[in-house]
Amino acid sequence: MEQYALPIANLIEQLSRLPGIGRKTAQRLAFYILEMEELDADKLAQSITNAKEKIRLCSICCNLTDIDPCNICRDHMRDKSVICVVEGAKDIIAMEKTREFKGEYHVLHGVISPMDNIGPNDIKVKELLARLSDGIVKEVILATNPTVEGEATSLYLSKLIKPLGIKVTRIAHGIPVGGDLEYFDEVTLSKAMENRREI
Amino acid sequence: MEQYALPIANLIEQLSRLPGIGRKTAQRLAFYILEMEELDADKLAQSITNAKEKIRLCSICCNLTDIDPCNICRDHMRDKSVICVVEGAKDIIAMEKTREFKGEYHVLHGVISPMDNIGPNDIKVKELLARLSDGIVKEVILATNPTVEGEATSLYLSKLIKPLGIKVTRIAHGIPVGGDLEYFDEVTLSKAMENRREI
Repeated sequence: MEQYALPIANLIEQLSRLPGIGRKTAQRLAFYILEMEELDADKLAQSITNAKEKIRLCSICCNLTDIDPCNICRDHMRDKSVICVVEGAKDIIAMEKTREFKGEYHVLHGVISPMDNIGPNDIKVKELLARLSDGIVKEVILATNPTVEGEATSLYLSKLIKPLGIKVTRIAHGIPVGGDLEYFDEVTLSKAMENRREI
Repeated sequence: MEQYALPIANLIEQLSRLPGIGRKTAQRLAFYILEMEELDADKLAQSITNAKEKIRLCSICCNLTDIDPCNICRDHMRDKSVICVVEGAKDIIAMEKTREFKGEYHVLHGVISPMDNIGPNDIKVKELLARLSDGIVKEVILATNPTVEGEATSLYLSKLIKPLGIKVTRIAHGIPVGGDLEYFDEVTLSKAMENRREI
């Protein structure tokens, strides 16, 4: 163990728990914070406490929000007949940047992953099904990530939702726009071939 | 501007001010923090506030410490006749890991950099000179980084300290142990050639 003063060691320890922040980066950040203006460090600490205090899940779509329902759910211009299901709240941000989708969202807060002991009851599946009961929703777009768990979760949801007479679709997988064939793995390539369209 | 709730936008903004944390990483960290246990997020925020509150500069060597004088300065086993001058407190940690150096340190908290408007009065030069007045110190080792500013600061300090009759040395520059010749820049290589020793 290095000879850090206890408050420094503790700060490094806490920072290194963040994802993608290794011990070395945590050290660098800790020393940066220690050399910061008192006021700026306060702002940083405050922003964490404040966000945790104010941010709740939207009671409709489970998005992270400071007002309930969230801005998207309370927007009357949005198409209430389509729900796009995503894994996390940050996927909504990515989707909204396209300015293409005008429906609503549902955030699962995870994916089904038996390896990690995460079953359907650990993510917001119940909440999704509850939204489908009133006959307003005509289509559910499954936009989980193209990972093993994402695919399995999509399959699971489609099996639950299709019997309700609701159209279930999955976002397309293939080569990203601007991508170069030689840099993609075989699974992406075979998906791209499989989903080819006549032009 | 993306449609983040204000507390989220604020958290992202504060995180992205940290060094090496871009907007994308800040977003990822922010969402991670939002999904964290309340208690863990509190610990993180507390560790920042606590470190800023408790950590001060050592009144002797300007190291970051929670007790004054710091652990190194109050250690009677250390050689008070040698001072190793470093740019930042984290350099002390790196140096201590070698377990070779048994003298004391002095932290400049920066380097002289006219481009950034940082002069000798903006770093802990005065404090260093004050330590040299009582005749106990026999050698000052300049261990600033081998950058333009680090070299200039070393040169400046050596010109101040030499007239006091104190030996001034500079740490050696060359190829790091385990390094491969072909990967080092010409300046490092020429330094390594220049500082060659007979074996």
